[in-house]
Amino acid sequence: MSDPADLAAKVESGDLRFHELEEHADADTAAAARRLLVEEQSGASLDTVGDYSFPAEDADHAIENMVGAAQIPMGVVGPVTVDGAATSGETYLPLATTEGALLASVNRGCSVIDAAGGATARVTKSGMTRAPVFRVADVAEAEALVSWVRDNEAQLREAAEETTNHGELLDVTPYVVGDNVYLRFRYDTKDAMGMNMATIATRAAADVVEAETAASLVALSGNLCSDKKPAAVNAVEGRGRSVTADVLIPREVVEDRLHTTPEAIAEINTRKNLVGSAKAGSLGFNAHVANVVAAMFLATGQDAAQVVEGSNAITTGDVKDGDLYVSVSLASLEVGTVGGGTKLPTQAEGLDIVGVRGGGDPAGANADALAECVAVGALAGELSLLAALGSRHLSSAHESLGR
Amino acid sequence: MSDPADLAAKVESGDLRFHELEEHADADTAAAARRLLVEEQSGASLDTVGDYSFPAEDADHAIENMVGAAQIPMGVVGPVTVDGAATSGETYLPLATTEGALLASVNRGCSVIDAAGGATARVTKSGMTRAPVFRVADVAEAEALVSWVRDNEAQLREAAEETTNHGELLDVTPYVVGDNVYLRFRYDTKDAMGMNMATIATRAAADVVEAETAASLVALSGNLCSDKKPAAVNAVEGRGRSVTADVLIPREVVEDRLHTTPEAIAEINTRKNLVGSAKAGSLGFNAHVANVVAAMFLATGQDAAQVVEGSNAITTGDVKDGDLYVSVSLASLEVGTVGGGTKLPTQAEGLDIVGVRGGGDPAGANADALAECVAVGALAGELSLLAALGSRHLSSAHESLGR
Amino acid sequence: MSDPADLAAKVESGDLRFHELEEHADADTAAAARRLLVEEQSGASLDTVGDYSFPAEDADHAIENMVGAAQIPMGVVGPVTVDGAATSGETYLPLATTEGALLASVNRGCSVIDAAGGATARVTKSGMTRAPVFRVADVAEAEALVSWVRDNEAQLREAAEETTNHGELLDVTPYVVGDNVYLRFRYDTKDAMGMNMATIATRAAADVVEAETAASLVALSGNLCSDKKPAAVNAVEGRGRSVTADVLIPREVVEDRLHTTPEAIAEINTRKNLVGSAKAGSLGFNAHVANVVAAMFLATGQDAAQVVEGSNAITTGDVKDGDLYVSVSLASLEVGTVGGGTKLPTQAEGLDIVGVRGGGDPAGANADALAECVAVGALAGELSLLAALGSRHLSSAHESLGR
Amino acid sequence: MSDPADLAAKVESGDLRFHELEEHADADTAAAARRLLVEEQSGASLDTVGDYSFPAEDADHAIENMVGAAQIPMGVVGPVTVDGAATSGETYLPLATTEGALLASVNRGCSVIDAAGGATARVTKSGMTRAPVFRVADVAEAEALVSWVRDNEAQLREAAEETTNHGELLDVTPYVVGDNVYLRFRYDTKDAMGMNMATIATRAAADVVEAETAASLVALSGNLCSDKKPAAVNAVEGRGRSVTADVLIPREVVEDRLHTTPEAIAEINTRKNLVGSAKAGSLGFNAHVANVVAAMFLATGQDAAQVVEGSNAITTGDVKDGDLYVSVSLASLEVGTVGGGTKLPTQAEGLDIVGVRGGGDPAGANADALAECVAVGALAGELSLLAALGSRHLSSAHESLGR
Repeated sequence: MSDPADLAAKVESGDLRFHELEEHADADTAAAARRLLVEEQSGASLDTVGDYSFPAEDADHAIENMVGAAQIPMGVVGPVTVDGAATSGETYLPLATTEGALLASVNRGCSVIDAAGGATARVTKSGMTRAPVFRVADVAEAEALVSWVRDNEAQLREAAEETTNHGELLDVTPYVVGDNVYLRFRYDTKDAMGMNMATIATRAAADVVEAETAASLVALSGNLCSDKKPAAVNAVEGRGRSVTADVLIPREVVEDRLHTTPEAIAEINTRKNLVGSAKAGSLGFNAHVANVVAAMFLATGQDAAQVVEGSNAITTGDVKDGDLYVSVSLASLEVGTVGGGTKLPTQAEGLDIVGVRGGGDPAGANADALAECVAVGALAGELSLLAALGSRHLSSAHESLGR
Repeated sequence: MSDPADLAAKVESGDLRFHELEEHADADTAAAARRLLVEEQSGASLDTVGDYSFPAEDADHAIENMVGAAQIPMGVVGPVTVDGAATSGETYLPLATTEGALLASVNRGCSVIDAAGGATARVTKSGMTRAPVFRVADVAEAEALVSWVRDNEAQLREAAEETTNHGELLDVTPYVVGDNVYLRFRYDTKDAMGMNMATIATRAAADVVEAETAASLVALSGNLCSDKKPAAVNAVEGRGRSVTADVLIPREVVEDRLHTTPEAIAEINTRKNLVGSAKAGSLGFNAHVANVVAAMFLATGQDAAQVVEGSNAITTGDVKDGDLYVSVSLASLEVGTVGGGTKLPTQAEGLDIVGVRGGGDPAGANADALAECVAVGALAGELSLLAALGSRHLSSAHESLGR
Repeated sequence: MSDPADLAAKVESGDLRFHELEEHADADTAAAARRLLVEEQSGASLDTVGDYSFPAEDADHAIENMVGAAQIPMGVVGPVTVDGAATSGETYLPLATTEGALLASVNRGCSVIDAAGGATARVTKSGMTRAPVFRVADVAEAEALVSWVRDNEAQLREAAEETTNHGELLDVTPYVVGDNVYLRFRYDTKDAMGMNMATIATRAAADVVEAETAASLVALSGNLCSDKKPAAVNAVEGRGRSVTADVLIPREVVEDRLHTTPEAIAEINTRKNLVGSAKAGSLGFNAHVANVVAAMFLATGQDAAQVVEGSNAITTGDVKDGDLYVSVSLASLEVGTVGGGTKLPTQAEGLDIVGVRGGGDPAGANADALAECVAVGALAGELSLLAALGSRHLSSAHESLGR
Repeated sequence: MSDPADLAAKVESGDLRFHELEEHADADTAAAARRLLVEEQSGASLDTVGDYSFPAEDADHAIENMVGAAQIPMGVVGPVTVDGAATSGETYLPLATTEGALLASVNRGCSVIDAAGGATARVTKSGMTRAPVFRVADVAEAEALVSWVRDNEAQLREAAEETTNHGELLDVTPYVVGDNVYLRFRYDTKDAMGMNMATIATRAAADVVEAETAASLVALSGNLCSDKKPAAVNAVEGRGRSVTADVLIPREVVEDRLHTTPEAIAEINTRKNLVGSAKAGSLGFNAHVANVVAAMFLATGQDAAQVVEGSNAITTGDVKDGDLYVSVSLASLEVGTVGGGTKLPTQAEGLDIVGVRGGGDPAGANADALAECVAVGALAGELSLLAALGSRHLSSAHESLGR
């Protein structure tokens, strides 16, 4: 059936179900029919939602009940020089956002970073996790399961790795709470963000646990993973990539380009990002890292809900021999360059801007490179916002001296 | 100048600056020129990024250095019956995501909620916050400032409210750490998410503090706000809307439609969402609330970085007289129906689907209604995922009984 | 009966119960009988435990099943000059501990503080809390209860304050999670630590809530109080006294007496107490505040389990015009000078050392003064430990320069 | 010199220093002289403080500037049957406290546990940690240090273990924040609590790091240890012993002895200990574990300041086939049976009550046994308090039905 109106009528008459339209028409027609139905129910016009620029069937792995697309403005900042372990040289960074002034601010940060010779970035830990929860009879059985896991990690690894061509099980960490045992499996998932890979592999390993011990699986995710929740386990131990970027900015660059001083920025960072966040009971000791993470995630096809743990970041700012040292450390940045949203057309183009679409060489290098670029983008954003506060601060200081 | 190639050439020759193209051409031409420059530098093709469906100048409040748009597939779930204080009746919920199976899952949750007669939702607290940090000489001066603020809230209110037509200052809470005093201003920002309104109003109030006391403003945001960071202050005290949705599902619906039992879902919720999150040191005691928050935020023009605090949510699941009671409470959901990304064309259409575009009547009602709808969407997502775990659980239980 | 052996024999024969001995003999004889029974069961000798120096009946409000006393070595540090709002002048501080070197370290800190002219201390917030949890039918009823509480705080105050001669209800803050409503009652309990007073008053107020609304009380403490648990609600909002102490130490004092520099101490404080604690997911941004809190609590009859929230403290260290500024802010220090353990003889003498035994004038002043003294003791401890790290640091720096 | 008054006079005349009296007289005389001085300065009488029952020189490893002792009433609960891995059978538990009703409550819990056949307890993880912070030049050097540590753990182990006869280095975990690298060393310290052992061993290992890499030690404790602060790293990963105790209580015991139902206790535990603590942003999901930890720590010579991390505990309560299952899991219980306060006379007798004074066989068994006993004591305390709430709850329920 190729007429959206006919299709919509069939839904209204009860002959077809709203979520099954793709079985009866091509994906674009199905989406058009759905727009008609939603427009009628809600009174909305969905013209621009329907005016997307890719074949709807190319998105069938990413959405159900499709009606069209949300269009988020995309821009670029840079180029900025990144000295990473997986990438090196000048690159534009793509950001998609609806927050005015964000790109202007990050761009200013990039410009100052470049004036200082570029930023350094490194991934210092890596691994995607999944932590099923098992029920045991009592604490004696819990202790026995913990011992069994420590003695049989090889067997779990074998079962887990049979499900994947690329993934490797790195380790399994057990946690006991009463008659609950959580096993946190950590994988090297190469260039994939890896949540699906980790889930499938963990299911196989969990089957082994159930077959070989008295434990019963309650849920494949027991929230010690921890996916899309703000959790200390990620902020402390990491998830996805733990990546840090830093830069040393000569005093004259700070003064000439940012109209403030290294001392002012260091003070603001301490009072706001460190002490203020401490008082707030925070897991995020930064100014607005989530802004850059969200915008680069949207531009490159990452999972927007994982901005949550992407914001587990600590920014430091110190005076070193008169110059300004700034760093940002993201504990749990979950990125991939294959699979999921990375295959969508605009997002794949976003990855191309950074030069990291698809699998890397060696495997994992592209996702590492993307992590390094996000970290440098976040560093630029932090630097720029701190400087904006600092220049106000300085002018305010001048005024008060002038009184 | 109307030829992108000419414009690009001028940038390459150093005659124009990359971020100033909009001063020399219309916004679409400027974006086209930027695409040429980025394509040349990176080797990327930006054809689909450039194929957006709105005048670029309509996005000039939302982006700088624009090259085009990221297109995120959008679908709908429902219709689902929402019994809110600000909205009532059946509504589709729009979600934009790249995570396959998400809408199918949420849709199943909506269907079960409707079979139970719909979900109830209420906003129980509301207020957008901004917390500047001031430097004082010492703790004696800190104590004096705290006293001054308690005695002069009216003066601060007057200064703050002069900057806004709609906003109202609700209260000011002081926090002392050594020679730092943080003042957390909380505003009723009506239908606006309100971060800008709160910032501008707080700047005016901070001027009064500086004029009347010995304190010096260090940063307009001292991170006790706390914006776009995972922070206990938001999870405990709320930010934006604190909104809860719940539903009581008859046992037979659970069994027939979800293929599990109220007991199984309650057990999974305890072991995963409560105990597992407790052990993870989490501020998010839920399964995947961030997925729905992110997807509805993208579809309706909210700030994607505020998904961070949108995930400060607690899900409960209990058996009540044999039936299943499920609730989700989002402590700090920051939404608006005016300003920011809500004006973009696809996002405005997303708001129209829910019937909440623009200012509400009374003021604030549309943003309340949107909050209630997001909460119900999140409830549907939690319910569906818990049920999926429960039915696996049940089948597993059946198998083990069958051994 | 006055012979412990006879009493013990009656227990062994089943004629008396172990915990009822005080009904059949004086308290010292009962304790002696219990020692015999425990010695026989365990093989232990309890000679020194039994050699306590007060009438056992004087402890009957503090212990059941008494066998004697644990003796914790007590010493003093100082005298140190405290410039507080509730106390002023030189004072010794009593500490009871089993950790060698602690008093020597705190004493050194006091000595340096005195060389700098003394420390300033202020209580910036005060209030003991109790937060019952109520069950409601659903979120609509939850919202109604929140509204009711906001409208009827006067009625709750009246009920609460009828139970106490001294306590005053300051405010009630509602929190909603699904069908749970938590009401956090905050009281001015004057010179009492106030947990009992707050509990009794809250029970009366909870009766009103149950009588006037549809809510049912589930537990008089719903853990949002939060007593004796490490909880952000206390670290952010305070419990008991929120108290800060600080000192500005001239550079030459730092160099001559502490053998380090203001810069070294500031750096260590940032890297250890701020950044290190941030990475640890901590609510305690300090070096060892709990040591001083615990030792002063034991010496003055405070509740040892409340050391938990006493450790919610932030230490700052900064260079100001070449000198060293150090502060420590304890968010939730729960102290009293009347009731509970303060009546025991050695503990009452501990309070006398500080001059704060019993009720203050005005009411609350003694407990405020004690809070200020604990804060200054904690400040001395922080300063001394940071300096010890700094002098090592400096010598190490010298060595590395010498290489 | 043997006359306290003479000694005191010398201090007043400036001939002797207050903290050096032990160099000029025996320890008891020195303490007596100090009492005179403190009494004169403060007006206090220190008679009972001075009436301690052990030679002062026996406490010289535990205190400086001694004036006497604080006497904390000590009692016992039980005997209770503990089924542990390191201990088995009936035992009294000693508690020292000033909180009336605590022992009565814990004793009731023990009685019910015994009626159910005793409690099971197991240590599931063990290790004392120390985490120095190093400064590196930049993130590239940070990454290099992390790699070096992973490759050279054997060398670090050798250096660390040379400093100790008993301790073993279990592992080293690196954490990077900008130009800070924290190395968390974890040791098996056998029957010692182990903080000193871990510190000394880590100092030796840190020397190796400084000698072999470009890193500079900033502080031997960088707060990722984390000692005496409420920190997620301990709650998640453990410190000292991670120990769990549980019990299954037949329904009739719950009803007859506790006057409530398994369902009521499970509900209270969920609403208070799980959901309430979740909303409070807590690391302690329990009712009052710190009470028992503090009281048993004082009675057995543990470090009172480590009650802080001893309160990182989760209590669960569930109905299992109609009976009541209750567990308590303490993530970071730091206990020892040798060294520190365990050598003091009353405290050594406290250890004797449990039968765990001194080194165990095999090494570590006594500290494990003590951990198991503390966990069972905490379990008894939780059970009793939940039951008290439950019986009130039940009676309230009855009343409301009766209306």
